[in-house]
Amino acid sequence: MLPGVGVFGTGEIANVLVPLLREKGFEVKAIWGRTLREAKETANAQNVSFYTNVIDEVLLRKDVDLVFIVCQPFLHAEISVKALGIGKHVVCDKPAGLHQTDSMKMVRAAQYYPTLISLVNHPLRFLPAFTQMRRCLQDGLIGSLGEVVLMDVRVQMGTLFPEKYNWMCDAQMGGGALNLVGSVVDLVHFLSQQQAIRVHGVLRAYTKTTPSINGIRQITAPDFCNFQMELASGTLVTVALHSHTVPTKSFSQEVLVYGSKGHLVVRGGDLFVLKESQQKEEAVYVDVQDLHVSTNNSLLPRPYIKGLCKMVGALKEAFNSKESSWIKAPVSTAATFEDGLYVQAVVEAIRKSNETRQWQRVQLTTDVPLNHDQIIRYGYARMSTM
Amino acid sequence: MLPGVGVFGTGEIANVLVPLLREKGFEVKAIWGRTLREAKETANAQNVSFYTNVIDEVLLRKDVDLVFIVCQPFLHAEISVKALGIGKHVVCDKPAGLHQTDSMKMVRAAQYYPTLISLVNHPLRFLPAFTQMRRCLQDGLIGSLGEVVLMDVRVQMGTLFPEKYNWMCDAQMGGGALNLVGSVVDLVHFLSQQQAIRVHGVLRAYTKTTPSINGIRQITAPDFCNFQMELASGTLVTVALHSHTVPTKSFSQEVLVYGSKGHLVVRGGDLFVLKESQQKEEAVYVDVQDLHVSTNNSLLPRPYIKGLCKMVGALKEAFNSKESSWIKAPVSTAATFEDGLYVQAVVEAIRKSNETRQWQRVQLTTDVPLNHDQIIRYGYARMSTM
Repeated sequence: MLPGVGVFGTGEIANVLVPLLREKGFEVKAIWGRTLREAKETANAQNVSFYTNVIDEVLLRKDVDLVFIVCQPFLHAEISVKALGIGKHVVCDKPAGLHQTDSMKMVRAAQYYPTLISLVNHPLRFLPAFTQMRRCLQDGLIGSLGEVVLMDVRVQMGTLFPEKYNWMCDAQMGGGALNLVGSVVDLVHFLSQQQAIRVHGVLRAYTKTTPSINGIRQITAPDFCNFQMELASGTLVTVALHSHTVPTKSFSQEVLVYGSKGHLVVRGGDLFVLKESQQKEEAVYVDVQDLHVSTNNSLLPRPYIKGLCKMVGALKEAFNSKESSWIKAPVSTAATFEDGLYVQAVVEAIRKSNETRQWQRVQLTTDVPLNHDQIIRYGYARMSTM
Repeated sequence: MLPGVGVFGTGEIANVLVPLLREKGFEVKAIWGRTLREAKETANAQNVSFYTNVIDEVLLRKDVDLVFIVCQPFLHAEISVKALGIGKHVVCDKPAGLHQTDSMKMVRAAQYYPTLISLVNHPLRFLPAFTQMRRCLQDGLIGSLGEVVLMDVRVQMGTLFPEKYNWMCDAQMGGGALNLVGSVVDLVHFLSQQQAIRVHGVLRAYTKTTPSINGIRQITAPDFCNFQMELASGTLVTVALHSHTVPTKSFSQEVLVYGSKGHLVVRGGDLFVLKESQQKEEAVYVDVQDLHVSTNNSLLPRPYIKGLCKMVGALKEAFNSKESSWIKAPVSTAATFEDGLYVQAVVEAIRKSNETRQWQRVQLTTDVPLNHDQIIRYGYARMSTM
């Protein structure tokens, strides 16, 4: 039997997520919103009977065993840690909190409850073109993985900012292009299976206002980023993320991986290879699947929605698995909280590089966060609800 | 009457240049090569009656009034300064010498003989898509020129290295991607009419050997460069130059300029605009002209050959002009020796940035080179030939 789901978050992403969950057979039992009005709006739109603005009222429900956290990032760590403590499986949207201290709290909680699912929502990992690309790289189609010399990523995205002002407009919250940077950093990690040693980056906030965001609150989040990373093996990664002045709602991405014996490239949802001595690229995977869910009004690019859809499918498989000890196998592709911590460290180094005009070493925090009590406290809360 | 031409250089570029010159009505009177054998080979292939390996034997010919210098860069300054001193018009291929000291010598000589033509061959300035783009920028089609926020250049070139080892394979000579970097730096300067204040760059030499270059001498010149520039107005310029593993002989370029009211983009030889509030790009200029000259076997990308062809046409117009005082007007688009010095300074800063992993200020040399005597000496030589 699939677990009941509680969704933390309202608006656009919740309106995409709830139908996807239902399509795969999950029942959405509760919606949480920062205000009761927002929670009610989304619950009504999605026909969910229970809504609240009190976190514990979702977490303590006996019919909720899996929570999706798609609200403001400053609450990601708090809700994740609480939920795991109470014994709920957690899928948390990127970023994994506001800073490494947040991510570290999440990592500790996940380590404390290893039988629970704890994932960061990086849906590109589930996009078939990228899972295939990863397999081709592992199989040495363009030379051994350690001999990949260059990866180049180019993303052009029409809209980074929503209709109404929210955290995506805020630099401190990790909004705008920073969020996109996180996705790319995770994707490179997923494909190359290597971490960045040092980074250099330039961030720019060109868009201050939009037709609908032009009041007292202006946009502070960057809408442009150009960055470079050096991976452990020496592989150079160059990334260009553009958004301003690209036509609204358009989205294009190109991910090239150059190896010693050719290159692989994902364009949109398709994968191509050019092997040494060939003159032309040939298709390895062509994306023909279409989504059942309408996404016309979503800020989320289609590849992200497609990936999310696949991830929800993998979760279904995991929960339907007979052998409960192997519950995590179908979602082994997904990003863990550790992966979330790494992404956070790289994004922080890029922000620092932008300020200092220098390359920065990626430094993963080793501080033990002071949330041991918290983890245990919610553990007791769990026992009292059993 | 058009001046007779002396060509300094052999091989591929000379074999492209000589037919272009003839097509426009110029007579090629002499070919110089580093060795007599090379000079003879090219002279025979191109049906030029006089060839030599002695620089002065070309410069002192009375039927040569214009010289094209397309040989190794370490000779560019020497031949340019000598030629101007002897009273010949000069078109020198990029780069303008090996380093800023070389470029500075060329600048001084050009300043000393202002009635003579002294140009650096940056042919992209003459490509219609770019001249049109420059005009659109000046006319404020996408907002005022000072409000351009971003320029993004992406060049993918299949072959950077020739069949036989030459200076293009040598990092110290400014070969490989460094030469391409110079072209892009000049193009950005031409389009934006602004100079770079500081730069950051990553250079990589992935290709060490080719099927034909695999002996004792290996390639040291980089085949990859990713760099960023900040212009005086604050405009950010991001550039990605790829060559390795792109199919041989392929060439693609995309130059985007984002302004306050839309963007302009050159793809290949075509120019498009996307104005504020529009949903789709529209074509401003579509390149339909084709070259009369066969270029199948050339290392030079077609846009460069097309630009060179247009430049030779402009030179013809300049020399046919009745008013000799205005001889330079038709070539006012071309890069001067001062422009060549600027490009040199930027390329040097990018190389330094690659070494130091830091942004570098672009520093134009202010040293007075010790070539005043040289300029004068050749001046006397000129008098003795009159």
